[in-house]
Amino acid sequence: MHLDALKEVIRNIPDFPEPGIQFKDITTLLKSPRHLKLAVEGLAAPFRADAPEGPLAERIDAVAGMEARGFVFGPLVAWQLDLPFIPIRKPGKLPAPTHSVAYDLEYGSASLEVHQDALLTGQRVLVIDDLLATGGTAAATAELIGRCGAEVAAFAFVIELAFLTGREVLAPHRVHAVIQY
Amino acid sequence: MHLDALKEVIRNIPDFPEPGIQFKDITTLLKSPRHLKLAVEGLAAPFRADAPEGPLAERIDAVAGMEARGFVFGPLVAWQLDLPFIPIRKPGKLPAPTHSVAYDLEYGSASLEVHQDALLTGQRVLVIDDLLATGGTAAATAELIGRCGAEVAAFAFVIELAFLTGREVLAPHRVHAVIQY
Repeated sequence: MHLDALKEVIRNIPDFPEPGIQFKDITTLLKSPRHLKLAVEGLAAPFRADAPEGPLAERIDAVAGMEARGFVFGPLVAWQLDLPFIPIRKPGKLPAPTHSVAYDLEYGSASLEVHQDALLTGQRVLVIDDLLATGGTAAATAELIGRCGAEVAAFAFVIELAFLTGREVLAPHRVHAVIQY
Repeated sequence: MHLDALKEVIRNIPDFPEPGIQFKDITTLLKSPRHLKLAVEGLAAPFRADAPEGPLAERIDAVAGMEARGFVFGPLVAWQLDLPFIPIRKPGKLPAPTHSVAYDLEYGSASLEVHQDALLTGQRVLVIDDLLATGGTAAATAELIGRCGAEVAAFAFVIELAFLTGREVLAPHRVHAVIQY
């Protein structure tokens, strides 16, 4: 099954959450076990020790994912790669001492947190989320990982909305996307 | 490795989120791939076609998980059992038409949503979450699944706080817990 088969099970919802936005609904992908496997294997493939891509295959110590849809894909990728999973959460959810980073949204702002002891100094982290749009959430996650003394090895997304150029926001980090629109 | 080994990697945080609560922090479990595997295999084991438990092994058509920590464990269990994953979300997050159920919390109330087309009539659903406390969230999820014309086959939790007797709230549904306090 070719990766573009994923587009057949991702539902397009017009005008959600705002008029003019074409929302990519991945709940229809999650209903199909073989498509979910395709997506997760697509996320993990470049980061396996035996990846034919060579240049993308490098030392990774942990996988991080952002609440809430990154929690669906991140642990599956961590399982595939036999690595720790580090949750990046909305404010007030993590019970131990945290680092916090605020970032701008189209309307207003938001913040994300990570446990201060989630990572060790020098660890290299693969950051997973379902969708790359403008890159704001992913950039905030990179900053959180830096606060822990660790660094981003790469970002991997199921879907990249290439016309929003989030990839440029995340440069010079490596960005892998399973499918693009 | 015995299931009680999970207790060695679940961190106890006193007085979170309220004074007097001993919060069970599973982020330390997620950092250990072998413990996460133990937890997920423990969640899925009774529901496998070849489960020695016999009575618990029955037809299951889908796995549901509640935002946000149920998103960590639910898809891993769905993957193990080769079943669809159905996300149960907080209000306003699901883009297509939803069913919604409000439920009481200790202070105030909350609600959960599921896509109206998430399940087919008569489907039997395994509901996954990290922790069973008073059972309010799980009971609301059962009601949502009923609204879809489907039914709960069983609940499975990594942790059961047995002294809060949530299991009684969920009766007569089957409740499986990997570890208990």
